[in-house]
Amino acid sequence: MKKIVRPYKKDFDYSYTSGASVTIELLKTNPGSVESVYIHSAFTQQEKIESICIANKIPCFLNDSVFKRINQKENTYVLGVFKKTKPKIAADEPHVVLVNPSDMGNLGTIIRTLAGFNICNLGIINPAADIWNPKTIRASMGSIFHINFQHFDNFEEYLKAFPKHHKYTFMLDADLELYPGTITRPPLFSLIFGNEATGLDGAYKDIGTAVKIPQSMLIDSLNLSTAVAVGVFSFTS
Amino acid sequence: MKKIVRPYKKDFDYSYTSGASVTIELLKTNPGSVESVYIHSAFTQQEKIESICIANKIPCFLNDSVFKRINQKENTYVLGVFKKTKPKIAADEPHVVLVNPSDMGNLGTIIRTLAGFNICNLGIINPAADIWNPKTIRASMGSIFHINFQHFDNFEEYLKAFPKHHKYTFMLDADLELYPGTITRPPLFSLIFGNEATGLDGAYKDIGTAVKIPQSMLIDSLNLSTAVAVGVFSFTS
Repeated sequence: MKKIVRPYKKDFDYSYTSGASVTIELLKTNPGSVESVYIHSAFTQQEKIESICIANKIPCFLNDSVFKRINQKENTYVLGVFKKTKPKIAADEPHVVLVNPSDMGNLGTIIRTLAGFNICNLGIINPAADIWNPKTIRASMGSIFHINFQHFDNFEEYLKAFPKHHKYTFMLDADLELYPGTITRPPLFSLIFGNEATGLDGAYKDIGTAVKIPQSMLIDSLNLSTAVAVGVFSFTS
Repeated sequence: MKKIVRPYKKDFDYSYTSGASVTIELLKTNPGSVESVYIHSAFTQQEKIESICIANKIPCFLNDSVFKRINQKENTYVLGVFKKTKPKIAADEPHVVLVNPSDMGNLGTIIRTLAGFNICNLGIINPAADIWNPKTIRASMGSIFHINFQHFDNFEEYLKAFPKHHKYTFMLDADLELYPGTITRPPLFSLIFGNEATGLDGAYKDIGTAVKIPQSMLIDSLNLSTAVAVGVFSFTS
């Protein structure tokens, strides 16, 4: 029976990509999770998407009403409906950990940055913005399908699961400043960032090595996705 | 006569901050440009804002209808109406130049990053997202008031005005990769970034030194604000 796609809600067991390039990314990296693809009649380059769907035996519908029904703000003409997966992060690779990230745009941009710098394991401490929300997926430009991620109910649970990673906590009041060459990075590390509004509280200062990104007095703090970009670049380049 | 504040349009000679902290940033850094401040009756901490207004002889109104009239999505309770200024960028300081940036959120985030790394001069090549749009101001968290910026009709106009800056063009197909230590930076430099969708075209390759941020094959490109953050961090730290 054909599923009726509805405006996204967090508790759905499925989500969808919106837009041609993000949907192609989904189809290329994770075809097994895709339940169906919808193409709007106004879309002019359907051959590429249709041929991937045929090759992977994914139902592909020419259908305009679904786009009205999900009622998105942006005009998109391709929709890829997929089953949410539960990938786990790898114990033998570096991690980024976000503690209570609250903004879906930031989360998506951060995922794109991680993929760009080959950090493919993201820990997320709940509560957090919904990683499967179509907005997050869109901000990630589809790079979400290249990343492992895992949710934890609290930071202790993460710590227990990955005791061997050297933890770097990004904090405004840390003593160690992040300049090229200041840190000799160990093979296994976690870069840990707090929430957009509050950062990491004082309790994180003694978990591993607290570091700060040097910044001027003109701002209270960097945007979270900016801080993650600078941190990840410093640890990978 | 009291001005009637309307939903923002680009051709207005005024704009407004929305939100308490951004308005306080405006009042502290640029009180001379502020025409009036509006406070919603639901706002509970009006004393601080009122006292700055009194000290600077800025009319401050307790008024709910203006918030309805400008019809913003977010609930904000403080509005600072100010006259747009035309600051120029300094000839003896480093610059960032954005060629046709199209996204107001990105532009605001970039401004926040620049202020954070003390690069206080931003050149913008038209056409470009509106720097004075309340959305841009909000994304900048008020750091826009710490930055000089200047618009240019085309890149040649910028080049002519600042011949002494060493130009670094950020391009995906550059040969020089940006790693800590790869670049001996001159005292006067411009970091030049293209549009979100298209980057800089081939013509920019010979303007100065073309550089690329090393990135994986998992993404097409980094988000513009991420690329600027990594570039600026590398050149200032």
